[in-house]
Amino acid sequence: MAALVPEVVVMRLPVYTRALVQLTAEGQEVISSQELGQLLRVTPAQIRKDLSYFGRFGRQGRGYNIRRLTVELQHILGIDRSWAMALVGVGHLGEAILNYRGFAPQGFNITAAFDTDPKRTGKKIGGITVQRLEEVRETIAARKIDIGIVAVPAAETQKVIDLLVAAGIKAILNYAPFAAQVPAGVKRRDIDPVLALQSMTFYLKESPK
Amino acid sequence: MAALVPEVVVMRLPVYTRALVQLTAEGQEVISSQELGQLLRVTPAQIRKDLSYFGRFGRQGRGYNIRRLTVELQHILGIDRSWAMALVGVGHLGEAILNYRGFAPQGFNITAAFDTDPKRTGKKIGGITVQRLEEVRETIAARKIDIGIVAVPAAETQKVIDLLVAAGIKAILNYAPFAAQVPAGVKRRDIDPVLALQSMTFYLKESPK
Repeated sequence: MAALVPEVVVMRLPVYTRALVQLTAEGQEVISSQELGQLLRVTPAQIRKDLSYFGRFGRQGRGYNIRRLTVELQHILGIDRSWAMALVGVGHLGEAILNYRGFAPQGFNITAAFDTDPKRTGKKIGGITVQRLEEVRETIAARKIDIGIVAVPAAETQKVIDLLVAAGIKAILNYAPFAAQVPAGVKRRDIDPVLALQSMTFYLKESPK
Repeated sequence: MAALVPEVVVMRLPVYTRALVQLTAEGQEVISSQELGQLLRVTPAQIRKDLSYFGRFGRQGRGYNIRRLTVELQHILGIDRSWAMALVGVGHLGEAILNYRGFAPQGFNITAAFDTDPKRTGKKIGGITVQRLEEVRETIAARKIDIGIVAVPAAETQKVIDLLVAAGIKAILNYAPFAAQVPAGVKRRDIDPVLALQSMTFYLKESPK
């Protein structure tokens, strides 16, 4: 199925899911594509088309059952289970990632961390003991780790990503400010607040003060 | 001009710019749209079309002068100058943001931080003294702050964003896991590693082990 669904659609499903979870928390049970579109600033047609890749969810004129749609989307996205992650790079940013409390409640657990610096290896941060980078392959296999998080300097990024891919990792969350390459069949998402800022200053510089 | 350029194009320009800076650092002086496309995994046609919104850069068959294109793009994006930013929310995540060393070298300076918790206000973190949230309006005006960074709990996000918008902020970098609303004329970018992870597990759950 994955091959048939455009990646832009897959990127939007978590945003829909998060909004639905939020609505449930607020006590809402049903929502129309119009309402959901308004909430997320997208067209209702886009929501209907995106969901149509996965079957029929709403009934004409009756809207979506929020709870049912949430469960379906969580299953489609594979987030109705938990995932094990390994972090490479335990500098300043890596430490913040190990201490970040937003992953675990969503089923994403960092279960291993690696660094090359002997001053960092052996240290326990956020409950995880930092291991030597040489142990990455064995640990990933032994602990059935699915996802790699990369928080190394730009110059080290490609090498580390290659290492993770060689160890069997198929999904990489990359915090390094570097356009790294991954082979086909491996997914990479970049978290780069600077790129996000730079795509806003375009508008700031033209707006009157 | 901004109104004529699709936002998806504006989102891609920082990625192009970053790659060009990287190439210059590696000593390269000229690049074709083919090569650049290959590096960034996009089509050369997309690069040519994106750049065509801003004039003519390359010469047919000669490729782009990397240094000249970099300078032009930095000017277009408004990143040939520096920008002042204010952070709201100095919890665990906010502290990591204040200590993050990736902003300043790119011209993005956090010059003020705010929180409501009296245990945090008055503390100095990453060189910035945390102020009371009540001071946000006055401080933003006095220090000519352009960009707001939001790192508060989900339930507080909308209130804080409304406050920043009322204080004149036109660009918001939102780290809270909440689909907040901003009025027309205000830009918002979300940094949410969980959404990025959730758009990869879709592929992981289908790939053979």
